[in-house]
Amino acid sequence: MKDLTDIPAMMDEIGRKARAAAAELAFAPAEAKRRALEAAADALAARTDAVIEANAQDLAYGRDKGLSPAMMDRLTLDAGRIAAICDGLRTVAAQDDPIGATIAEWDMPSGLHIRRVRTPLGVVGVIYESRPNVTADAGALCLKSGNAVILRGGSESFHSSAAIHDCLVEGLRAASLPEDAIQRVPTRDRAAVSEMLGMVDLIDVIVPRGGKGLVGLVQREARVPVFAHLEGIVHIYVDAAADPVKTLDVVLNAKTRRTGICGAAECLLIHRDALDTIGQGVVRALVDAGVEVRGDAELQQIEGVVPASEDDWGHEYLDMILAARVVDDIDGAIAHIRRYGSNHTDCILTEDDAAAERFFTRLDSAILMRNASTQFADGGEFGMGAEIGIATGKMHARGPVGAEQLTSFKYLVTGEGSVRR
Amino acid sequence: MKDLTDIPAMMDEIGRKARAAAAELAFAPAEAKRRALEAAADALAARTDAVIEANAQDLAYGRDKGLSPAMMDRLTLDAGRIAAICDGLRTVAAQDDPIGATIAEWDMPSGLHIRRVRTPLGVVGVIYESRPNVTADAGALCLKSGNAVILRGGSESFHSSAAIHDCLVEGLRAASLPEDAIQRVPTRDRAAVSEMLGMVDLIDVIVPRGGKGLVGLVQREARVPVFAHLEGIVHIYVDAAADPVKTLDVVLNAKTRRTGICGAAECLLIHRDALDTIGQGVVRALVDAGVEVRGDAELQQIEGVVPASEDDWGHEYLDMILAARVVDDIDGAIAHIRRYGSNHTDCILTEDDAAAERFFTRLDSAILMRNASTQFADGGEFGMGAEIGIATGKMHARGPVGAEQLTSFKYLVTGEGSVRR
Repeated sequence: MKDLTDIPAMMDEIGRKARAAAAELAFAPAEAKRRALEAAADALAARTDAVIEANAQDLAYGRDKGLSPAMMDRLTLDAGRIAAICDGLRTVAAQDDPIGATIAEWDMPSGLHIRRVRTPLGVVGVIYESRPNVTADAGALCLKSGNAVILRGGSESFHSSAAIHDCLVEGLRAASLPEDAIQRVPTRDRAAVSEMLGMVDLIDVIVPRGGKGLVGLVQREARVPVFAHLEGIVHIYVDAAADPVKTLDVVLNAKTRRTGICGAAECLLIHRDALDTIGQGVVRALVDAGVEVRGDAELQQIEGVVPASEDDWGHEYLDMILAARVVDDIDGAIAHIRRYGSNHTDCILTEDDAAAERFFTRLDSAILMRNASTQFADGGEFGMGAEIGIATGKMHARGPVGAEQLTSFKYLVTGEGSVRR
Repeated sequence: MKDLTDIPAMMDEIGRKARAAAAELAFAPAEAKRRALEAAADALAARTDAVIEANAQDLAYGRDKGLSPAMMDRLTLDAGRIAAICDGLRTVAAQDDPIGATIAEWDMPSGLHIRRVRTPLGVVGVIYESRPNVTADAGALCLKSGNAVILRGGSESFHSSAAIHDCLVEGLRAASLPEDAIQRVPTRDRAAVSEMLGMVDLIDVIVPRGGKGLVGLVQREARVPVFAHLEGIVHIYVDAAADPVKTLDVVLNAKTRRTGICGAAECLLIHRDALDTIGQGVVRALVDAGVEVRGDAELQQIEGVVPASEDDWGHEYLDMILAARVVDDIDGAIAHIRRYGSNHTDCILTEDDAAAERFFTRLDSAILMRNASTQFADGGEFGMGAEIGIATGKMHARGPVGAEQLTSFKYLVTGEGSVRR
């Protein structure tokens, strides 16, 4: 049993064990990793009742803490949700193994043959809030990519995460992989988070999953590299050459399908020349759909539009609210997005290839879209099977982060007694 | 004229200008960047005398400071060396432009077409010591990869770097690219370095070029990500199944061709079964070539071998000195390299494919070699044309860092009014 009162010592021990497990995992056969994930899914399916019981403890704790209904819902596990977690584990199990794959290879005139092959990053730290399923998702993706992982879940999902974690460890055991490959921080003490953020020698990357408060804290305090996005301030620009039907479909979907996800639209920019032909109809449809549209002076002419203040530009609502303004041209839209955007996902609606090209080359969001809903900003919709999060940084990982982006590489060079002149 | 007394304000201004230039450079045509580098080479060739004059000032300063003959040599520019710098600029100019290239593209059942295209990182900070040619090399690679760069050269090469920098700016001007794309810190004040290391919002990555003192300082203090290697503790392992001729050629070349580069061998590991057949001859040849071989108890039996102490394992000599020891088997060699190596470059000499495979999968150095001299650890020898340095970290860049690894990417997604269900 770990000494839970000496957090630095406990985290150091967890980190060292993770480092040791990572060294083994780096050359673990693809088949063993696949088997471990299948066995974990089997274990979780078999223990559904026990996991629901553990979840009941968390729900009682949550009620005592007065969690909001939305948070209580996120925290709740039932047989259907547990079956979905099992499916997720099996999906990752079935994916191609990224490790050891040759990314590029070539010959040099010196006689050298050079191969660039994919390797794990090492140890990943995942810090998350209430959703217990992240335990399984993050654990599975890290194992698939040959990384050891240290999971630090929210205090609300403490018992549920522990029960799911037990199943992951059972899977590792069944496949004769090191049990320390997937470790869980066994305390609610927040000092463990601070500790993780400074473990530069034992953790290679931290992935925070949760609200702006958590992500901001991690980005500010971490000395370990971080894959994350702070906010998804998603813009949709309706160009002069936009198609009316596509525009209506895409804007409504981007705002209203689910308002709480990071790919939901937060700001609508309308080219002056498209205002009468398309813009007004789209804004009316949004108002009719129950969206609070906060518009600039011009858009306030439309019934139901309320005035926007300066604070509305660059604001992430995650709600049925949308900021909206008219721009003089595409460069006005680009300038607005550069100033207020968060480099997450931004979209242009246009039939004009030159306008789309200008938008694509002059902006540097992780995801740029044309005539498609920004709600597609998701690892599953990108064909990655699963994602550990979406990153807006420019170093290493960007956009939806799946198993492949949790990897590094090394060069394998072969000669025939080759010497350098 | 900048106020050289208020370093934080000056660096902030330089950083902001770099950020603005980077936004332009991100979509600068490949042809403009090529033309700028050609024009810079022309300007440098035309101003050879002026650069030699500036260099004379630096040489006088270096003599006053009592620089070692080796450092004075590194600092010296003559017509031949300037011509070589011009050639380097033209080589980078002629390389393929990495920016905008499609790295991968695919279609999704939802109707989306997804493209992953290469983008610049943004702003690169280069901190280097005496060699004035780094000004041209680093400036050229950053421009090629669409990055703005802030160059902070060593105080010894202050005037030479300024003269070379002038030529780079002339090239930018000739191609109508923003002059702030390549900026130089116009002071010897060390406070500028500390300032750069903390400019997380204005610099995306720092590349230190120089000795262990400089690189260690940067790695310890920087809050900005760093591409670097602290040391090249390069191991060569002579396996039981090594070929005698290849082994002799490769070991001698790896140690003696140039002792001062990071790919020079620093430690020789010999499989017990190869000791009498190959090991002794190789060690004798090293001693005959003037190498001080510091051996373990067994190797001390060979004439001329001096005793190694514990400090010799994991030591970077950059000199005609080599640590050497006998290991029981390949796993002994792997364990030694894991314990004492620096994840830079390590080599196995063997004709046994299974042994090579074990070495390649169980070690995670940035470069692993088989039957080839470790002195090939170089961007030019890898076919990259030029390198800004060699990185041993696992995030983003690894091994020789050329123009391509100074890039990031973004996703360009196209639909036909596609909405998410």
